Amino acid sequence: MQRQGVELISSAQLAELAGVSPAQIRKDLSHFGRFGKQGTGYDVLHLRRELIRILGLDRQWPMALVGLGALGQAIMHYGGFKERGFHIAAVFDSDPDKIGKQIGDLVVMPPERISHELPKRQIQIGIVAVPPEAAQSVANLLVRSGVRAILNYAPITLSAPPEVHVEQIDPVVHLQHMVYYLRHCPQ
Amino acid sequence: MQRQGVELISSAQLAELAGVSPAQIRKDLSHFGRFGKQGTGYDVLHLRRELIRILGLDRQWPMALVGLGALGQAIMHYGGFKERGFHIAAVFDSDPDKIGKQIGDLVVMPPERISHELPKRQIQIGIVAVPPEAAQSVANLLVRSGVRAILNYAPITLSAPPEVHVEQIDPVVHLQHMVYYLRHCPQ
Repeated sequence: MQRQGVELISSAQLAELAGVSPAQIRKDLSHFGRFGKQGTGYDVLHLRRELIRILGLDRQWPMALVGLGALGQAIMHYGGFKERGFHIAAVFDSDPDKIGKQIGDLVVMPPERISHELPKRQIQIGIVAVPPEAAQSVANLLVRSGVRAILNYAPITLSAPPEVHVEQIDPVVHLQHMVYYLRHCPQ
Repeated sequence: MQRQGVELISSAQLAELAGVSPAQIRKDLSHFGRFGKQGTGYDVLHLRRELIRILGLDRQWPMALVGLGALGQAIMHYGGFKERGFHIAAVFDSDPDKIGKQIGDLVVMPPERISHELPKRQIQIGIVAVPPEAAQSVANLLVRSGVRAILNYAPITLSAPPEVHVEQIDPVVHLQHMVYYLRHCPQ
């Protein structure tokens, strides 16, 4: 909206864009203060700035990527991180052919360096892109090295202490959502 | 639970595993019929079979993958599809070096074949793994070829007619969830 030069937006418009109800928008935002004016809607610039602050996106978050197979390489080149406050600050792989290679401005390091490098670089976010059989041990190593948030691409459920946040990228969950509709709303 | 030999499960146990409230479990399931018995809980085997049927997962869904860069290759080798009812039945890429190559039991085809191959193979699900600047035109082509569900890996929001379901794999959304907690619950 800001990029399109829109200055004010109503909860109804926000609701339509977000796919929820206007009441939900107003309720959710009210948890964090007063952002809108009755009858005029929300100031786009102000609301965006406040949302960025609330979500903790007003800073850059360095991340460690573990695993440089096809998936890890795709993640390295993913175009959506930087502009939204995230960047990969360290890369690890156990393959001797990959260790020491330069990728962008990073050098691939062996997993044994994780416990040294992560605290040094104040990295609290780890991305797991290793084969499923290695994912849990990598997650354990990340947690021992100070990581508090893990984005898991491996198709297994990771165990982690309750204070560590784990989210899984699971394409099948998305497919299942959609298939439900294909099945129940035949063309 | 079934694999572990568990025969009965309570809504409280299901709720804990799913990270929601027991009341939510009971309410959600009640939309589809009566699955549990007051006091004894749910029969694991029966509940699983019913959930599979409700979710439309009692069949194999063929999918078309468009884009065979690092990401597309990772998707080709993703281990989580088959056992959950999905498989890639056709692969497309515009790179002349890739067209005609054999990957598993599939041969890479040029995007011009999409409108012919998808109806022929009754493919209703498309996976978009092309660079962001090509994603919308690929999505349009998929929709014109009969696709009704699109899983989008490109870091852009795709437009599609309302009858086509689009879900986006967006790692940053997951990161933002977690960062909210890192920010507001400092160690």
